[in-house]
Amino acid sequence: MLSLKHVAINSFNENIVYLHRDCDIYKVEDIKNVTKIEVHGGAEPVGAFLEVVDDESIVSPNQLGVNNQAFEQLNLPEGANVTVSLATVPSSVASIKRKISGNVLYDSEYKAIIKDITAKKYSNMDVASFLVATGSFMTVQEVLALTEALAGDECYNWDNENIVVDHHCMGGVPGNKTDIIVAAIVAAYGLPVMKTASRSLTSCAGVADTFGVLANVDIDEKIIRKSIRENRGAIVNHYNLPITYASKVISSVQRNLGMVKQEHVLASIIAIKLITGVSHLLVDIPVGPNSNIKTTNDALKIRKMIEYIGDMLNIQVDAVITDGSEPIGNGVGSVLEARDVMRVLRNKENAPQDLKEKSLFLAGRLIEFDPKVRGGQGYHIAKEILASGRALEALNRIIYTQGKAPQAQLGRLTRDITADKHGVVESINNSRINRIGILAGAQQTPGSGLDLFKKVGDKVERGDVLYRIHSVNANDFAFANSAVDGDNGYEISSKK
Amino acid sequence: MLSLKHVAINSFNENIVYLHRDCDIYKVEDIKNVTKIEVHGGAEPVGAFLEVVDDESIVSPNQLGVNNQAFEQLNLPEGANVTVSLATVPSSVASIKRKISGNVLYDSEYKAIIKDITAKKYSNMDVASFLVATGSFMTVQEVLALTEALAGDECYNWDNENIVVDHHCMGGVPGNKTDIIVAAIVAAYGLPVMKTASRSLTSCAGVADTFGVLANVDIDEKIIRKSIRENRGAIVNHYNLPITYASKVISSVQRNLGMVKQEHVLASIIAIKLITGVSHLLVDIPVGPNSNIKTTNDALKIRKMIEYIGDMLNIQVDAVITDGSEPIGNGVGSVLEARDVMRVLRNKENAPQDLKEKSLFLAGRLIEFDPKVRGGQGYHIAKEILASGRALEALNRIIYTQGKAPQAQLGRLTRDITADKHGVVESINNSRINRIGILAGAQQTPGSGLDLFKKVGDKVERGDVLYRIHSVNANDFAFANSAVDGDNGYEISSKK
Repeated sequence: MLSLKHVAINSFNENIVYLHRDCDIYKVEDIKNVTKIEVHGGAEPVGAFLEVVDDESIVSPNQLGVNNQAFEQLNLPEGANVTVSLATVPSSVASIKRKISGNVLYDSEYKAIIKDITAKKYSNMDVASFLVATGSFMTVQEVLALTEALAGDECYNWDNENIVVDHHCMGGVPGNKTDIIVAAIVAAYGLPVMKTASRSLTSCAGVADTFGVLANVDIDEKIIRKSIRENRGAIVNHYNLPITYASKVISSVQRNLGMVKQEHVLASIIAIKLITGVSHLLVDIPVGPNSNIKTTNDALKIRKMIEYIGDMLNIQVDAVITDGSEPIGNGVGSVLEARDVMRVLRNKENAPQDLKEKSLFLAGRLIEFDPKVRGGQGYHIAKEILASGRALEALNRIIYTQGKAPQAQLGRLTRDITADKHGVVESINNSRINRIGILAGAQQTPGSGLDLFKKVGDKVERGDVLYRIHSVNANDFAFANSAVDGDNGYEISSKK
Repeated sequence: MLSLKHVAINSFNENIVYLHRDCDIYKVEDIKNVTKIEVHGGAEPVGAFLEVVDDESIVSPNQLGVNNQAFEQLNLPEGANVTVSLATVPSSVASIKRKISGNVLYDSEYKAIIKDITAKKYSNMDVASFLVATGSFMTVQEVLALTEALAGDECYNWDNENIVVDHHCMGGVPGNKTDIIVAAIVAAYGLPVMKTASRSLTSCAGVADTFGVLANVDIDEKIIRKSIRENRGAIVNHYNLPITYASKVISSVQRNLGMVKQEHVLASIIAIKLITGVSHLLVDIPVGPNSNIKTTNDALKIRKMIEYIGDMLNIQVDAVITDGSEPIGNGVGSVLEARDVMRVLRNKENAPQDLKEKSLFLAGRLIEFDPKVRGGQGYHIAKEILASGRALEALNRIIYTQGKAPQAQLGRLTRDITADKHGVVESINNSRINRIGILAGAQQTPGSGLDLFKKVGDKVERGDVLYRIHSVNANDFAFANSAVDGDNGYEISSKK
């Protein structure tokens, strides 16, 4: 028997076990492979990757060290007696093999795979296999099956509401934080907005990051319900909703692999909407050569898939294809984006017009989910609500209920990127701007990012500032600087 | 700047970086994803997975801890100044995406992928993606391209030899250790045998494990050359040949995923033969319902693929399809298999006849690679060499040159599995026997395994011992016992 020891290492979503090289119970010196074992002693065996330690201060030869994740899952006290065996491959891996061979999987197979992921039987490597295997093709029925599997059996019940709305953007456009403005306008109108959002996956800032600058987004169901009851809206980081564990793991592995497949994203998103009891969903599909979705044909395919899944799951879906050819607003990065959002809500003169107009358009579409609204009137209603200041009041109430966030500082390390010739901004490369913002530290520190002073179509003189880099950490600042010198993401044409 | 610290943790082939939760240089508290970073400060940036530590005895807030693998790759002293950035996805991942979309990859793409794996730019997750993406289909040209990419540019030169032979078995048949007997006979005949072998991947014992009971198999090129020069043969664990790193990582991930695709195995095997300068290769393809290759059609497909690749790479290939319906010999597990091998070489009465006959057949085919041998005479030559004791002498010389291994003890924890009725052994399930042997500890401890007393066709009385389980560790013994009670792998029919 080995004695359990908690080693305070957080490996995010992977269980790790540490054995000393001289472990006398379980001989490890010869293991020269990726080795997954099972730890026995708790209510159920817990799978974990084996790592071998040569330092008795971490584990001694009669101990079994476990990282935070495995310790939590084992749910045993330190010093408990445990044994280990080689792990077996989860049975649902047989379905991944079937998929690799080109089969269409049954609904029950998606259920079994997601059940194994939720039970933490899949390593990140296994999740990667699943994503790659289903990455070659999925029928719409398969996407539906994955959606239902991810949603599971529990979902929020909104007995007193006929309509619960949400809005989701397929992403890929830096600065595109319409979500918060839209939520504020629609909540002010009175339709309940159950806005689930994520932290950044591949962008500089997710909606949860940007709203996280203003309010606490890691709230539980009780606060969500209170805010929706009292303010007609809540904007929540779905990451901490316990029922979305499998979606979380999938997103995390996708991001790491650098392979984000729209079918997986869709299933994951709609599952979260299903879990949170959304009845009416607006989906924004931006199309642009450097956006996530590059052609109108791709966007149409996604729209049809969303519509099909919505119909099958009894969610009213309105999917709109929008212009994703350049960044929206001026700020890229949480603090700068939150500033833009507040400028729009405060009806400031320097509010970015593209962000304002797109938000009004989307809010109008959501308001038209209300049977009382005459077709085509949504936009005007939204505009009136924004202009009157009622949207700002609604957002302030939501912030108050969710809890105001401590002030986040804009990064003080700055550099102005200037035009190297006279001309007109011909294009701004979304993915390049995104990359520079990430290097500047946007994903780790909310105060880092880019402030865009010029947009497509603007005239520039040589030496005009195109954008300003903000970094919090010197380390990140240096990486952003060296990246920007290669390609700053702007194309200036000399034509009049 | 962070100060480098070596944390003595061995994660096999994954780089890991440890930052303290309160790290003041690089803010980590908010990272809630699988996060890959790059460490800067050495000759080249080194990619690694980030884990967060809450124990200052492991790393303090101003340190960057690195595991054995990352420490070795960084090649900097402890206390060196290092910085970190987010990692970029390796550029060859674009080819994996192309493969997922159903494309045939170019030779240059396989080269780039293997180059990135060799440069340790791929995590295990990335390797899994590559294996799954190419798992759906590979053309023979693609298998050839992968083989060449894995082989790289360096290979052994055998200037003084016209012929250098090797023999490889596609596996899946417990106890099938013909390789050592074949090598001994052919070396005694005088053809140089460059036998590369692996430790167990999915079986109870690899050839390197079984021969490792008798001799040191982790030898370098100098000893290999000495043994072949003096004894006409060497039996080597290819794992420690530095030029096979990518193959090693691929095998390790395959095994962990539980997805072993023959195309990958083939490319990996032939690459190693190419690296070690083998000119003539005999491949044994056992077919059986519970073997790796289940149908004659599959075996023919593999044979044709091996023949094609051999032709293109100028390796003479003889691929033979053999009976893989039941275990070969009596022992399953390194010590027991080595015992069987020595019984055959010593011409003992209790030597397993199936192992002996199959070895003579294969040795005969290898001997017939010699242009001086008349077609059909190989078997008789092999039989004469074995009977004369010259094969035993040859093996003893090889063992002496490679270095005799310390005596390994057979596991002392035993249980006899008996027939529950009179009858005839109708079938023995290879994969079940393999599983029970693995649970008994065969992959970790050479003395663990199964000793089969009855084979297909043998008459049994109720209570006769079918096989004996041997375990070294009580832990493993318990798992084997509980597995065997479900299904012991033998089918006894009552018919006369």
